[in-house]
Amino acid sequence: MVGFVSLVGAGPGDPELLTLKAVRCLQEADLVLYDALVNPEVLEFATRARRFCVGKRGHQPSFDQRTIEHLLIVAAGRGERVVRLKCGDPFVLGRGGEEALALAEARIPFEVVPGITSSIAAPLLSGIPVTHRGLSSGFSVISGHTPKSWKPLLDAIRPNVMTLVILMGFRQRAKIASYLIERGWRSDTLVALLLAASTDHAERWVGTLEELSGATPELDENTSPGTLVVGDVVSVAEEVRGLMRGDTESIRDRSEPIAMRI
Amino acid sequence: MVGFVSLVGAGPGDPELLTLKAVRCLQEADLVLYDALVNPEVLEFATRARRFCVGKRGHQPSFDQRTIEHLLIVAAGRGERVVRLKCGDPFVLGRGGEEALALAEARIPFEVVPGITSSIAAPLLSGIPVTHRGLSSGFSVISGHTPKSWKPLLDAIRPNVMTLVILMGFRQRAKIASYLIERGWRSDTLVALLLAASTDHAERWVGTLEELSGATPELDENTSPGTLVVGDVVSVAEEVRGLMRGDTESIRDRSEPIAMRI
Repeated sequence: MVGFVSLVGAGPGDPELLTLKAVRCLQEADLVLYDALVNPEVLEFATRARRFCVGKRGHQPSFDQRTIEHLLIVAAGRGERVVRLKCGDPFVLGRGGEEALALAEARIPFEVVPGITSSIAAPLLSGIPVTHRGLSSGFSVISGHTPKSWKPLLDAIRPNVMTLVILMGFRQRAKIASYLIERGWRSDTLVALLLAASTDHAERWVGTLEELSGATPELDENTSPGTLVVGDVVSVAEEVRGLMRGDTESIRDRSEPIAMRI
Repeated sequence: MVGFVSLVGAGPGDPELLTLKAVRCLQEADLVLYDALVNPEVLEFATRARRFCVGKRGHQPSFDQRTIEHLLIVAAGRGERVVRLKCGDPFVLGRGGEEALALAEARIPFEVVPGITSSIAAPLLSGIPVTHRGLSSGFSVISGHTPKSWKPLLDAIRPNVMTLVILMGFRQRAKIASYLIERGWRSDTLVALLLAASTDHAERWVGTLEELSGATPELDENTSPGTLVVGDVVSVAEEVRGLMRGDTESIRDRSEPIAMRI
């Protein structure tokens, strides 16, 4: 009697941004193992499941990756329907691929349910399209976690050609900005720093690469994942500001509108 | 009496991959203007709306971009709740940004509802994570529609560093593959060609860059959007093949498993 594991994307935070399939998986689950940053309201769909947080929360101890994989395998091996609920999309910078490989190796049947990734949705909810005719017909998404992750990727991208989206780069923002300028990006390239997108705590700062180190949001990245968007597409947000719902009434602006500043 | 426009992402095809918010928008809509490639089952949520296809279908005439924007503005100006339903995510290569700007200029209140983009979900549903520890910690998404769109972007990305996802590049696949090799990509770099992902007609071909021109899927791109994934992450699919639900039982393979070929 072997159970089943669903690796499920929980989206950026707003429970309405779950997919129908993610909701069904949660409703049918016996056990949910969730990331620390998953919105608690999302967990309410899992009415019959035992639920455990397996992610890092502040300074509390967290489960390491191998332990999480082991828990999935053991529970499914007992015949349980298990949901591994991950922030955003399970296959974007979330070690979901490693979990899939561990399950395959243990011969546990599984599925992967895509989620709304904040790499696209955080800009979108601020009025920024990652691609826009005449401004950029492509975008790159990279991890800004450590210089070891972002340096080789920034080295691989020619400056000011396509939109750059940097996830988990909030703490490294000053280093990333000066590295980009050093690599040849225009110092007046527009940047948006977006925190807690799609939630009631959403914050936005818009400025230029050379101003980024001075951005001082109220939130910190332990509680609110940060998304950096670098490129001309940021200008679109300024043109729709005030007319897009979920924009000015619910996102706290940490900067003057660019249109008023340049 | 001014109405409201929701620019809504319909996801890759499977109705279960709609977000709860997209479903609510469709249920509340008076009018739905949808892309040709939107799955008809998705439209069934719009029970009280008049529904019109405004996208290109084969050789039939289609609406140009300005006409679509005009229709949105006129209907909302009459006080209607309008949904503009777009394939995938409305702000990824879909001219959604232009629609947002047109609405803002006409002072029509609107919102943008993110959708599951096939740039991430098509690989995911084939067992390919766009990022994977040790293989790639970033990815680029570009339009493969015409050489004018893909050449400057491919020129801007250093070969074999990050995953490359090319949307709408099915017809151009031979030209794109030889251009990548010319630019210095290894000719044995793995490639997946994914068609109609998440639907009952899903097809997959896996091979190398130098083999790509010989890929002969049964579907054509008029009816099934194509996604190309280039990079080492494609190898993950081979390791999970047969254990991931929605994999071998529902995707027609147009190639031998790579593991059996190399």
